[in-house]
Amino acid sequence: MLSQKELIQLFKETRLDSEKICSFLETEDYVVQPVENVSPPKWHLGHTTWFFEEFVLKKYAKDHQLFDENTAYVFNSYYESVGEKVIRTNRGNLSRPTVAWIYKFREYVTKEMLKLLQETELDKEALEVVEIGCHHEKQHQELLYADIKYILGNNPLFPKYNDDFQENLIEDFDREWIDVSEGIYKIGHKTDDFCYDNEKGVHKKYLCDFSISNKLVTNQEFIEFIEAGGYSDVLLWHAEAWDWLETNKIDAPSYWHKIDGNWHQYTLNGLKRLDLKAPVTHISYYEAFAYAQWKEMRLPTEEEWETAQEQFAWGSRWEWTESAYSPYPDYKKPEGALGEYNGKFMVNQKVLRGGSVATSRNHTRFTYRNFFHPQLRWQFTGFRLVK
Amino acid sequence: MLSQKELIQLFKETRLDSEKICSFLETEDYVVQPVENVSPPKWHLGHTTWFFEEFVLKKYAKDHQLFDENTAYVFNSYYESVGEKVIRTNRGNLSRPTVAWIYKFREYVTKEMLKLLQETELDKEALEVVEIGCHHEKQHQELLYADIKYILGNNPLFPKYNDDFQENLIEDFDREWIDVSEGIYKIGHKTDDFCYDNEKGVHKKYLCDFSISNKLVTNQEFIEFIEAGGYSDVLLWHAEAWDWLETNKIDAPSYWHKIDGNWHQYTLNGLKRLDLKAPVTHISYYEAFAYAQWKEMRLPTEEEWETAQEQFAWGSRWEWTESAYSPYPDYKKPEGALGEYNGKFMVNQKVLRGGSVATSRNHTRFTYRNFFHPQLRWQFTGFRLVK
Amino acid sequence: MLSQKELIQLFKETRLDSEKICSFLETEDYVVQPVENVSPPKWHLGHTTWFFEEFVLKKYAKDHQLFDENTAYVFNSYYESVGEKVIRTNRGNLSRPTVAWIYKFREYVTKEMLKLLQETELDKEALEVVEIGCHHEKQHQELLYADIKYILGNNPLFPKYNDDFQENLIEDFDREWIDVSEGIYKIGHKTDDFCYDNEKGVHKKYLCDFSISNKLVTNQEFIEFIEAGGYSDVLLWHAEAWDWLETNKIDAPSYWHKIDGNWHQYTLNGLKRLDLKAPVTHISYYEAFAYAQWKEMRLPTEEEWETAQEQFAWGSRWEWTESAYSPYPDYKKPEGALGEYNGKFMVNQKVLRGGSVATSRNHTRFTYRNFFHPQLRWQFTGFRLVK
Amino acid sequence: MLSQKELIQLFKETRLDSEKICSFLETEDYVVQPVENVSPPKWHLGHTTWFFEEFVLKKYAKDHQLFDENTAYVFNSYYESVGEKVIRTNRGNLSRPTVAWIYKFREYVTKEMLKLLQETELDKEALEVVEIGCHHEKQHQELLYADIKYILGNNPLFPKYNDDFQENLIEDFDREWIDVSEGIYKIGHKTDDFCYDNEKGVHKKYLCDFSISNKLVTNQEFIEFIEAGGYSDVLLWHAEAWDWLETNKIDAPSYWHKIDGNWHQYTLNGLKRLDLKAPVTHISYYEAFAYAQWKEMRLPTEEEWETAQEQFAWGSRWEWTESAYSPYPDYKKPEGALGEYNGKFMVNQKVLRGGSVATSRNHTRFTYRNFFHPQLRWQFTGFRLVK
Repeated sequence: MLSQKELIQLFKETRLDSEKICSFLETEDYVVQPVENVSPPKWHLGHTTWFFEEFVLKKYAKDHQLFDENTAYVFNSYYESVGEKVIRTNRGNLSRPTVAWIYKFREYVTKEMLKLLQETELDKEALEVVEIGCHHEKQHQELLYADIKYILGNNPLFPKYNDDFQENLIEDFDREWIDVSEGIYKIGHKTDDFCYDNEKGVHKKYLCDFSISNKLVTNQEFIEFIEAGGYSDVLLWHAEAWDWLETNKIDAPSYWHKIDGNWHQYTLNGLKRLDLKAPVTHISYYEAFAYAQWKEMRLPTEEEWETAQEQFAWGSRWEWTESAYSPYPDYKKPEGALGEYNGKFMVNQKVLRGGSVATSRNHTRFTYRNFFHPQLRWQFTGFRLVK
Repeated sequence: MLSQKELIQLFKETRLDSEKICSFLETEDYVVQPVENVSPPKWHLGHTTWFFEEFVLKKYAKDHQLFDENTAYVFNSYYESVGEKVIRTNRGNLSRPTVAWIYKFREYVTKEMLKLLQETELDKEALEVVEIGCHHEKQHQELLYADIKYILGNNPLFPKYNDDFQENLIEDFDREWIDVSEGIYKIGHKTDDFCYDNEKGVHKKYLCDFSISNKLVTNQEFIEFIEAGGYSDVLLWHAEAWDWLETNKIDAPSYWHKIDGNWHQYTLNGLKRLDLKAPVTHISYYEAFAYAQWKEMRLPTEEEWETAQEQFAWGSRWEWTESAYSPYPDYKKPEGALGEYNGKFMVNQKVLRGGSVATSRNHTRFTYRNFFHPQLRWQFTGFRLVK
Repeated sequence: MLSQKELIQLFKETRLDSEKICSFLETEDYVVQPVENVSPPKWHLGHTTWFFEEFVLKKYAKDHQLFDENTAYVFNSYYESVGEKVIRTNRGNLSRPTVAWIYKFREYVTKEMLKLLQETELDKEALEVVEIGCHHEKQHQELLYADIKYILGNNPLFPKYNDDFQENLIEDFDREWIDVSEGIYKIGHKTDDFCYDNEKGVHKKYLCDFSISNKLVTNQEFIEFIEAGGYSDVLLWHAEAWDWLETNKIDAPSYWHKIDGNWHQYTLNGLKRLDLKAPVTHISYYEAFAYAQWKEMRLPTEEEWETAQEQFAWGSRWEWTESAYSPYPDYKKPEGALGEYNGKFMVNQKVLRGGSVATSRNHTRFTYRNFFHPQLRWQFTGFRLVK
Repeated sequence: MLSQKELIQLFKETRLDSEKICSFLETEDYVVQPVENVSPPKWHLGHTTWFFEEFVLKKYAKDHQLFDENTAYVFNSYYESVGEKVIRTNRGNLSRPTVAWIYKFREYVTKEMLKLLQETELDKEALEVVEIGCHHEKQHQELLYADIKYILGNNPLFPKYNDDFQENLIEDFDREWIDVSEGIYKIGHKTDDFCYDNEKGVHKKYLCDFSISNKLVTNQEFIEFIEAGGYSDVLLWHAEAWDWLETNKIDAPSYWHKIDGNWHQYTLNGLKRLDLKAPVTHISYYEAFAYAQWKEMRLPTEEEWETAQEQFAWGSRWEWTESAYSPYPDYKKPEGALGEYNGKFMVNQKVLRGGSVATSRNHTRFTYRNFFHPQLRWQFTGFRLVK
């Protein structure tokens, strides 16, 4: 648990980071929503701000004046209708409030929050909500990167985001297999540091012997799979994956383009020749699974990953695991609106572990349970094998 | 046929008008596409500019330097794919090129066009294309108004466009019925002035006796239809209209909102109490037809409208007719790409006559054949009755 | 207007004909509904019977005992829900009532109808409903042929219907062009014989000079269009047609199969080599239009067709016209439920004239206005050209 | 492993059972497919027969004459296209081959199989395939019951299947909680008897303390959930469940109808008053989960269920577990076509344990892992709670 002083620091840097991420955007880039799961950047900026006003300032700041009570509600991720006869709209259809308005909203809420944090001694409950708010915003920072990449990378002009973002951290060492012995292991978040509800409840898990790779599968290796006809061998794929491949005509990772016979990749630095040594990314669980089938290996379970993680480097790609996203044995949903945070997604998704080049600083940990539907590819996903 | 000098004037004012219309927008408003038939304003600005560069400058301006050959093609309304593996996107997903870029593109093309028009004597063919380009842009000006209204009016914040635009021209006189006698009438564009291909070919039409109203159906009258249960009497509606009503839960014209028991209407001036005397607008052909059924009257055919139009005022609402959009007896599709302009839409659409408050100056005429699918409501549509 | 005695004869032969058509079916063939517009044959048999019980026997037969009041309502083509919580089903999902039940229902209603017709002198209104009921059933007989062909012809086993049905009436004479002179012509049903409401209201129509072909376009001619790349030349097609082609991967008329380099056609006699001399059939309006564009000709309007029809043979294919299906100038919808018969379809459809090899005897006439959506192909459609 | 003699017995009774199940059907009932996951009964009868001809007779019976090489392939569940230009059809659109044909096909294959089994000593591999074929057919027997119930129970006439089938086995004893202590348990199929590939690989599992109910949740209890507003409390549901509820307007278990204020249930014996003491059935995983949330309890994992099952009665309802369907630690997909049997479904589905009133005799066992998508309700599903 952070002290109030540490929390002020966390809050300040979190708020700043979101704005830094967006500083490379044109106003127009803040607005669009090319597919349902990609939110407009301005929505992220507004929603994370609404969170602090709604759950902290309204409750704990005496005589808090709402920035704009007629507008902020559009950043409630749960709103469904506003008065009679207003059409439920997708986020990408809303040109207003403007980006400038949102930055003013942010400025106001940040200032009011700092005033509260600096002038009032908050109780534990309040501090916890502030801390959750910071981590919530950090999650949205990672979404910002993924969504910005989707917005720019699916534009036929392939505009770059900036020149500095490093997508491809190369693991420049040989593949080795780390052996873990059969036995009972403890799983779950063990310290008092911040974590989400879904990591809590340390519990025992019996694992069989397994060997896990010390490095991620690379682009070079994934090309071998493609060239061996992996995308057209029905026996490597789940039934639902095969339908997905056919419907969407998938035959390579997302953002890959073959130009004049050479594989290119759209990156946040623009369209580049594919770096063969880099870990493959923007692949679905289905593709990770099919690759593993082809190698006659498998993906780790989340508990295997957690148990072995001290022995390999991680954090460059969110790593698909074989584990479905389910509650831990003692999982309890938190009370109130914040209880909707994690539990309601515990079906039809797969757990990813680790973190990625787009994960905010101090936002991941080895017990962190990320989760996505198995077909999604817009995040910086990757995988390592187990045999 | 306009002289080259007149054409320069037309060109100048047309280009300026488009920009005036957009001068009330925020940058964000230029970007969104909330439904398929509503294009982002920036797309209209770019597309009308691309038209002049593609069909005039590339062909007739010696040594024309393209403004940006890698970008302008996104404003080709016909493009389907750009190189390998680029996803076909909806217009509303494209944050780039930016609005600023488009204004530079406009400035460049306008300047180059004026240079061409002022320094070179163009042949008839070239002048015709310039004239079409101006009318093409004027059509997009009307679309701009309708699309902007859709974008702002479907935003839950109901931002206004400006305070000056006059939507509701009131016909403050009593309803009278204008009698037209049975006989042969000549239909089609009869002068040398500009018109579209679909108006050409003067031909004879035998009309029976009919009486046409001297004024449009008003909001007050349409409320009577609603209150008489018009939207729930299946016998008044086409079979396809009934499905459309049920699927979309339609029970009033578009932009109508009942707030605290009173009908309001979103207008370009913001959300206002409904003006009962104003002509009803933003209704589909289906609703116009059902209203006419309820009154035991009917809509005019386009030839009836054209024959009678000298005897009533028009131009405030695009008036639905009973006529399906079909070729005139001697219709010939123009050669080349401009031949795609009208003919390929001659199925499953209804003709509208007149013009509306959003129609550009000098853009309509009594032979003008506008056309939309029968369910569309985002234009300033209305109707008058025949008995 | 038929006498009651003539009507008895018409009724008897109509009822018999429906059953003769179905006599070649297996029980299983009566049940399926492979696409929405193809109804199961058992539904046709039940619905036409329900019509007589609902609109004649219930109203005019004293003390009529319903055959089965809990069941017959499923043959109401308008029913939407039955009591609480019953799922609205597609017709092809209903295995019950059985075919045997339906034949008993038919037998009962036919017997009761004959008793009524033979023992009671009916008034004009009642006789009119009986006559409509017969023509209604004759319409369903043509649908039966088309639906049966769809059911069997889309089965991968290609079972034949029977050996006798003659689909391909060959026009074994040279193409000639029939000239019709400009002038006023009278259109519409002119006698007292039976016709539908939509044919009524004789009215004058001004036609320009035209020449119409004395024969239908043949398979041989349509192959020339295919081989000239007609299906891939976007300029020949309506915009909506092009989308339809691409979505449905259309590249030949329906029921055509190229096997070992030779065109075959599924016919009611089974899969056969395509008869090159036969008139092309099972094509959409879109394809007829594109063919005409390619020939630099056009389709006739329905009034041209009606005016010229005495000078050519017709009745082998329903002939697409350029005319949208609209009300005649004096069209009045009949009162009551039967008023829903025609008027509510007068939007987004095209008129077809003539009749086909599947049309019931005595069911067509030169004023008959058939209508379908422009993309539909499951009827025996064809076309002739005008220049 | 069964002896060849035992296998003959199993084969005989299996073949007979499928036909007994269908003996209550009308021919029409064999044909329809009201939703994608409900296959026509005739398809089940043909497909299970095709399995024996394809995988046994073709391979092991010397000089086997195919019953009909042009037809049987339609019962291959994997076929996608048959020659050029044949439309991929849904099973419910195929009226042919007829039911009579299928019974002849069954008779022929059963006879040929018995000849093979009685006259030739088969090797282990062959015997295994025969045994799988029998269990495969038993699985289809359960599907037959569920599909027949769906076909008849979604018919507005609510025809009954027969009078004898017992759906509702009442657990007429009090609820008690069976305690299981923390520790390592062995999971998986431990004997040499037949089981599917997905049960194999005995492995250790660490379980925490838990208490499991000795009886299933009843209709009475489920009504309490409904009356407490369970279906409208968003906090009880997964996010995807809530969308599913809203889209499909779900507010009660499948087959429940409230008639004059009383709950009724369509059963295979027809529409009946709901038996309050019977275990609730035809519910989705989502509903089972929401009920458990409401009770502040949870569903068992499949390993908890397997560990505790000796201490309670089961077999009346397939019991939803919290476990996602995943491979056991040592899971290996079998070689060849039979390898597609289970592995390819191991994503996005939930495991169900136990068996139901519709499960074939000798077909279930305590290690059996059934699996369905979480929203499906057409099987005889139910659940018990854990706390």
